This record gives sequence, C-alpha cells and structure tokens, in this order.
Amino acid sequence: MAPEPATPSRRIRITLAYDGTEFHGWQIQPDLATVQGILEDIISGVEGKPVHVAGSGRTDAGVHAEAQVAAFTLENPIPVDNLRRAVNRLLPPAIRITAAEETHSEFHPRFDSIAKTYRYTVFRGETCPPFKWRYVHYHPYPLNEARMAEGANVFVGTHNFAKFSAKDDRAAGSSKVRTIFSSDVRREGELLIYTVRGSGFLKHMVRNLMGTLIEMGRGNLSPAKIPYKSGNTVPAKGLTMVSVEYPHATLKP
Amino acid sequence: MAPEPATPSRRIRITLAYDGTEFHGWQIQPDLATVQGILEDIISGVEGKPVHVAGSGRTDAGVHAEAQVAAFTLENPIPVDNLRRAVNRLLPPAIRITAAEETHSEFHPRFDSIAKTYRYTVFRGETCPPFKWRYVHYHPYPLNEARMAEGANVFVGTHNFAKFSAKDDRAAGSSKVRTIFSSDVRREGELLIYTVRGSGFLKHMVRNLMGTLIEMGRGNLSPAKIPYKSGNTVPAKGLTMVSVEYPHATLKP
Repeated sequence: MAPEPATPSRRIRITLAYDGTEFHGWQIQPDLATVQGILEDIISGVEGKPVHVAGSGRTDAGVHAEAQVAAFTLENPIPVDNLRRAVNRLLPPAIRITAAEETHSEFHPRFDSIAKTYRYTVFRGETCPPFKWRYVHYHPYPLNEARMAEGANVFVGTHNFAKFSAKDDRAAGSSKVRTIFSSDVRREGELLIYTVRGSGFLKHMVRNLMGTLIEMGRGNLSPAKIPYKSGNTVPAKGLTMVSVEYPHATLKP
Repeated sequence: MAPEPATPSRRIRITLAYDGTEFHGWQIQPDLATVQGILEDIISGVEGKPVHVAGSGRTDAGVHAEAQVAAFTLENPIPVDNLRRAVNRLLPPAIRITAAEETHSEFHPRFDSIAKTYRYTVFRGETCPPFKWRYVHYHPYPLNEARMAEGANVFVGTHNFAKFSAKDDRAAGSSKVRTIFSSDVRREGELLIYTVRGSGFLKHMVRNLMGTLIEMGRGNLSPAKIPYKSGNTVPAKGLTMVSVEYPHATLKP
C-alpha cells in the first residue's frame, strides 16, 4: 500500500477578547483555568489530537484583553469562519474569538509582533459603579495628574527597564531593554487612563510603570528623568491588552 | 434611676446599584448571598442590633439594578454621608450605595413607589464582547424588530397581566392588574433595548413581556392585541432595574 499523502496543515491566526477576572492568566497551568489552556482543550478537540496555541504574550491572572493574538497549526480543513463560530460556542462567554484567518506557516504571534499597546485604567471617583469594578483600579485619593502626564512622557524611547520588571524576572539573563513609542495619561470623566505602546513589555512592566506614575502623582517621585525606583505594582484588573501589531506580510495573501 | 430617654430613630432611604451576577436575588435567604441579606448584615453591624432593610421590589437572581431603592430605621446618629461611605467600604464591589438621605419615618420603598422602570437588553450581533455577556441576553437569530416595537406598544395601559406572572405566582389571590405607562423597543448598535415603565410589576413580568415580544419578532404571535399566551421567560441577566419613582414628599424637607 502506498503511504497516505501528508495532510496539508494550515497556520491559523486568531484575535481574542477576554475578561481576565476568572482566569489564572494566559499561560497554561495544570488544574487551573487559563485562557491558553481552555483554548488548547477546545481546539485539540476540533483537531482530534493535541494542538499547541501560541500567544503574543502572557497576560497575568486578572488582566483583560481586547485583542490578544494567538496562532496554531491545524490539519482539519474546516473553513476559518466555521472554526471561529464552533470554538466560540464551546468557549466560556468571558473569552471570544473576534477574528480568525489563515496566515503563513512560520507566523509566530510573539516573535513576529512589532508593537503592543496596553491600557491601564484608574477609577478616580468616590463610588465605582458595580458594572466597572472588574476593569479598573480604585484610587480616589489625591493625585497630581498633570505631573503624571509629564512623567508618562519620560518613559518614551529605548531604555533598560530592568527596574520595572517583576522581581522574579530580574535575575534572568535576557535583555531588559525595550522601546516605548508612546506613553500617555488622560482623563475621561471619572477614569484616569494610561495608554502605552511599545516594542514589547517585561513581566509586570505596565503595572510597574503605572505604579511609578501614581508615586509621581502623589509627589513622591520626580518626573524629571526615568526613575530608578518604581512604585507599587498596581492590581492586574485595571490592565487591558489593547492591540498587537505585525508587519503587513504576516497575513496570507 | 430615671429611665434612659428613648434614642430618636431616623428613617434612612438609600439608592443602590448592583451587578446581580453573583447574588441569589434581592430577598434574604438562609445560607445564600443576597443583596438584602448582605445589606442587613452590614447595617446591623453598624447599628449594633438587627436592622431590617426594606426594598422597593424583589429582583430575581441574576437581575441587575442601577437604582434600586431601600430603607431602614437607625438609632445610630452617624451622618448619612459617613454611613454611605462606611457601608460601601464593607460591601462587595458588586453592590454600591449611590445615595443616602433621611426620609419620613413612615417611608416604605415598596408601598410608596408610584412607578418603576426596567430595561431588558438583547445582544443581536454574532460575537458578544466578553465585557458585556453578564448584562445581555444573546439572541443573534432573525427577529422582526419593527413588529416587536409595534407589539411593545400594545402593553401600554391598565390590564390584567396574570398571564405574564411567574407560574408559582398565578394562583395567589392578589390583583394581577397593573398599569404600563410606557413600553418601547429600540436598537442601539448591536443591542436591542426594551424599556418599560409601569405602576408595578408581577414576579417575572418583564422577562415574560420580553419573551412575548421575541415570539412576536419570530412571527409566532400577532402584535394586534394583548396576547393571551406569553413566550418563554427570558434569562435574568438581560434585566436591569433602572429607577423607582416616589411622590416628591417622601424626602425629609
């Protein structure tokens, strides 16, 4: 008998939105509900054998995403629109695939990304609406917000952000140099919104940048230069991954 | 020894917002987390003895509120603004007191109310954002929405709504006659929003009105007259108590 011809496999790129409240972050962990773990279970079920789902970055437990990007390789010939619908029916309502498309076989959502944008939201009013508490950090105490806006600007550029990485990540040998393209604090009603776009981010980096901005707002830190000491790591729930950018060539023509 | 003079008691009226997702409704129940139960625990703690908290109406498990009204009697002389802040600090973040004021000693949030407004939200798009699923009923299937808008109008007026009450409530002897002041269906992007204002509502009534409107939208029921048969009771999570109205005289001058 002639050998069966190899099934052509396809690389699928998906965009995901999730409410991170109920998950132990992106990365798969035994016996814990994680976004990657849930996706791998469902997509492996569709494929009939184990499928690895790669993400653009690990979001921490409690962090949300409006447009996380992930990718996996599939032999199942199911059209991508049907795949998206089928997986969405099986996912918990707190995770949705918002787009699915075929991409080049070598596409990797983490290594190919050229920029990521995160948003951190602080609730500045006295009474946080019950429908918003999952998505904001409650901080009704005095802050000099003009000083914070000035401080946010100082992060722009290419710097060694080692002091802004997670403590358990600081000893690791890899480079802590990252480039921040934009870094803005603005007020929208009762919300103080920090939006940062960069080449990539270290573990806990956005939460540490925000904690540092809060220290500046409290008057404990000067916004004159990149500070050597960061403030507290602010809570995960105020953080949302907004978008991940790729060169135009990553989508299959 | 002369008897201690009676402590003057005050009637406090509070306005509450809550995300009903995690609660077993308004009404206190043994061993279950309910909005009334949690409030009574906290306010009794402030008072140092049991305090009964009366609500304007019992919301079902999973139903949300933007402005539920409740009242209780307190001997503790704490200023109402301090009381609101103290109770908010002890409440879970899914329940907030948005206003607190002294009212007449006879004020009862249920018996004194002259109108209530509820909103029911149906998500009509294909992919419900993870940040919205707790507050909408997902129904992406075809509906004749113009027909539903026409049907909503038919509920206006004074009618016997027995057919729209919960099955376990239909045998009870009390009147099932209610007056609907306004009843409107409108589209806002991917949301179909039903807003109904009336003198009062029977158990499950709004969810049954909405279920009936959906049957009309599917073409199974004519909007020509008050129907005798209602559709399914739609899920609680799409329902929000929007406001409760009182005569002007209920606030203490």
